[in-house]
Amino acid sequence: MQKIFSYNQLYQFCHTIFLKIGCNTNDATTATKVLLNADLRGIDSHGIARLSGYVRLWEAKRINATPQIKIIHETPSTATVDGDEGLGLVVAPHAMQIAINKAKNVGTGWVSVCNSNHFGIAGYHAMMALEFDMMGIAMTNASALVAPTFSIERMLGTNPIAVAIPAKNQPAFVADFATTTAANGKLEILQRKNADAPVGWVQDAEGLSSTDANILKKKGALLPLGTDREHGSHKGYALGSIVDIFSGVLSGASYGPWVPPFPAYVPMPEYQPGKGLGHFFGAIRIDAFRSANEFKEHMDNWIEQFRKAKPAKGFDKVLIPGDPERETEILRRKEGIPIVESVVEDLKLVAEKFKVLL
Amino acid sequence: MQKIFSYNQLYQFCHTIFLKIGCNTNDATTATKVLLNADLRGIDSHGIARLSGYVRLWEAKRINATPQIKIIHETPSTATVDGDEGLGLVVAPHAMQIAINKAKNVGTGWVSVCNSNHFGIAGYHAMMALEFDMMGIAMTNASALVAPTFSIERMLGTNPIAVAIPAKNQPAFVADFATTTAANGKLEILQRKNADAPVGWVQDAEGLSSTDANILKKKGALLPLGTDREHGSHKGYALGSIVDIFSGVLSGASYGPWVPPFPAYVPMPEYQPGKGLGHFFGAIRIDAFRSANEFKEHMDNWIEQFRKAKPAKGFDKVLIPGDPERETEILRRKEGIPIVESVVEDLKLVAEKFKVLL
Repeated sequence: MQKIFSYNQLYQFCHTIFLKIGCNTNDATTATKVLLNADLRGIDSHGIARLSGYVRLWEAKRINATPQIKIIHETPSTATVDGDEGLGLVVAPHAMQIAINKAKNVGTGWVSVCNSNHFGIAGYHAMMALEFDMMGIAMTNASALVAPTFSIERMLGTNPIAVAIPAKNQPAFVADFATTTAANGKLEILQRKNADAPVGWVQDAEGLSSTDANILKKKGALLPLGTDREHGSHKGYALGSIVDIFSGVLSGASYGPWVPPFPAYVPMPEYQPGKGLGHFFGAIRIDAFRSANEFKEHMDNWIEQFRKAKPAKGFDKVLIPGDPERETEILRRKEGIPIVESVVEDLKLVAEKFKVLL
Repeated sequence: MQKIFSYNQLYQFCHTIFLKIGCNTNDATTATKVLLNADLRGIDSHGIARLSGYVRLWEAKRINATPQIKIIHETPSTATVDGDEGLGLVVAPHAMQIAINKAKNVGTGWVSVCNSNHFGIAGYHAMMALEFDMMGIAMTNASALVAPTFSIERMLGTNPIAVAIPAKNQPAFVADFATTTAANGKLEILQRKNADAPVGWVQDAEGLSSTDANILKKKGALLPLGTDREHGSHKGYALGSIVDIFSGVLSGASYGPWVPPFPAYVPMPEYQPGKGLGHFFGAIRIDAFRSANEFKEHMDNWIEQFRKAKPAKGFDKVLIPGDPERETEILRRKEGIPIVESVVEDLKLVAEKFKVLL
């Protein structure tokens, strides 16, 4: 069961709620755009479904709706930003803009962020670079759900990486993925359907292979990209670790098993090696390496060649990273955004809480 | 069957061969160090086993032993380097040094390289940053052996990524991995043993799962990290693509299916969208973000915590990326480097060719 909403309906609602928790108009606008970009692009787990979670974090005083986001350290190509416990949805675009400005000046810009919170989908922030003929990079750490290779202990979040690369006539190349075999959102979908997970997504508390989509509630863990050692899980573990270190250790945020949890009912870890969640952003000006026009023509050539690659039996065509999300966005802008019943119910509670209409 | 050589024996031999093909002393020294670092660290497929391959490329006039490596485009934080068809073993450390110098000046340095050749192990170049309290990044494209998700056509190389991160009392974190489920070198080991490959490493010409370690000779392909769509192969495909674009498209090198092959007997692709192989390097000065000492203390904390993570049943301990290679290096510096018989025979032919002793 689901209900269809127009983008504008959801936009008005979210914007109102962010104003209600005390954001100024600019910040409410930014947070709404970032959050709903997930719904537009079909990454439903990271969109409006999380609005009530952000509200609960604010109620628990773990989110500051009026943050003083500031640069605490910088060089011509780098900055460390303290998000002042702001909404990640607001802190992240602010930090990415600093990276873009630095790239304008010295070719590239790199910003590590501490004291932040969940920032929506990584792809949104990486894509901010595209209109400036830059490549964009965004990553974030997150609370621990993933066991390193050979371990049964949750040490890493799903720690996503997004990379956006402009082309000329072809749409941009946009990769945005969790460094696990499957994102947690995929498990949540199976939970709602009462379905099993494929072998290789999760393990149980003993480290044995499991297909139980609810295994994370039973001390199980998500597996790094690669699934097991024989299939390269040490690579997924390394990637997740790199995201954690760039986002957390470099910025002065918390890291590893100590990253603050998203659900407000989960207590904060007793020991905290740094402040809040960490992110890392990069902006790379194309013409710091070669003519942007030339590059984009070659990207068209690259993309066209990959689209032409012979499909395997049973498959239609080869996809370019970003294709499915872009197609979903076109459709949903036209036909509306389907929201599952349980999320609608959740949003109604938020509406009641603030005495507004959904 | 294998024979043990001391590092010094192999060093003298390689150095002599690089001089014989016309390298100057400095370049011969650099090339030898880079090549043998693979043997020291246990990545036997990328070390002296490839010496005869480099010689054959030089004989085919695909390697210039006296390159004029130059910067063809730059900004304060970036450079594009033309390797002048030099040995990748020489071009890569040169380019990485430029990245390090730029990081000294403006916080980070990023260098994209065209017109180069195979550069040995990515880890060597990334690790050059460590002694400067920097993080190092190295990647390269390579000739196409990997089919994108849903495809049967080889479009990408094994396109490795290396990231080196300094710690204080703990050894550095050094990840260095192909963006495929298994590196091609792992397949070669199975071929020599006449053994099957695990399910998930390769597919046959039709795109069906295969365990034939010789399938690449029968139009099969390596699979991206993740193995299949259900287990995230689109993520491995995206990672390999990002390496290709950063290394090839950004620098003006060839890319995708048109990257020049390593074996000299394989003809060059007729169409070449750019010059030679491409690499990409990054150097990130830690104190461009926070005190290097503070960072390294937190890295020790990170590493110690991950070492303590509970191992799964049947496993000893959790490894930190770089642990196995570092342990191998300690052992091999002491006890010598085992070289398999077929490689020894190959080296003897090289020795004869140049009338030197092995």
